[in-house]
Amino acid sequence: MTYLPLKPNPQLDLVLERYVDVLPEQVWAAWTTPEHIKHWFTPAPWKTIDCEIDLRPGGAFRTVMQSPEGQEFPNVGCYLEIVENERLVWTNVLAPGYRPSNATSDAAAFMFTAVISLELHGKGTKYTALVIHGDEDSRNKHEKMGFHDGWSKALDQLVEYIKKC
Amino acid sequence: MTYLPLKPNPQLDLVLERYVDVLPEQVWAAWTTPEHIKHWFTPAPWKTIDCEIDLRPGGAFRTVMQSPEGQEFPNVGCYLEIVENERLVWTNVLAPGYRPSNATSDAAAFMFTAVISLELHGKGTKYTALVIHGDEDSRNKHEKMGFHDGWSKALDQLVEYIKKC
Repeated sequence: MTYLPLKPNPQLDLVLERYVDVLPEQVWAAWTTPEHIKHWFTPAPWKTIDCEIDLRPGGAFRTVMQSPEGQEFPNVGCYLEIVENERLVWTNVLAPGYRPSNATSDAAAFMFTAVISLELHGKGTKYTALVIHGDEDSRNKHEKMGFHDGWSKALDQLVEYIKKC
Repeated sequence: MTYLPLKPNPQLDLVLERYVDVLPEQVWAAWTTPEHIKHWFTPAPWKTIDCEIDLRPGGAFRTVMQSPEGQEFPNVGCYLEIVENERLVWTNVLAPGYRPSNATSDAAAFMFTAVISLELHGKGTKYTALVIHGDEDSRNKHEKMGFHDGWSKALDQLVEYIKKC
């Protein structure tokens, strides 16, 4: 079973593609280990203060972010596809155990599926984050929220954290 | 990686559990082959007149049902988990390629994830269909629509079809 190619639709999707000088397996570990996530996942001065990972299809991906003022924002998603060191897929459209999210219309604006793809490139990694939305409005709101800066800054933090480990 | 146990929540989920006298691999083939699906999937006098299956995580599961009056009802879902002869999971909360469904509020009433589990039992199969909803309202609407009769009659058709093949 080969895995499904996922081609971005520019009207509905957001993409961050970068080359980083750490290995795919290091990026994979940073994305799939709760203790690592806390060190890089949220662009400073925001923090990720809690994380739970059940790394299998249907499993939970939970984080709690904290604003600089101390307000907490819990997030929960469901893992869909786990191809070690290559592809990680989760969505917030489903809660853990594949249950459809019973979202408020406000949260629904940011419903998405995220696909992290890693490919060995020289001694580093071609890193692609694809974020898939259901409509243009959700995509545009996510972009205005600061998708590109936020995900890019988090990736910088990830690389810096890996190098310190 | 062991797969996630999925425990029904009686307030949110619907379950059909039956023992049938055909083998798990025969039931699996009936569920995963478009030509087979057309013969049993929709309780008569409704028909399934078209079916497309891309059997991998993120792949499409499309059917077109036809009412006795000739009206057509297309359905589309996204496969999530494929464990040959054991477990098949798909949802209509996501479109193929893991895209969040851009559903109308009417369709949203029947958003669900379906899990077909097969277990060898003597010379037959313990067959469990678990349908997971996001809220009680969706579950109750689905039940009133005739879930138990409909899915049970379709299973009878499946068994009858397998025995004729």
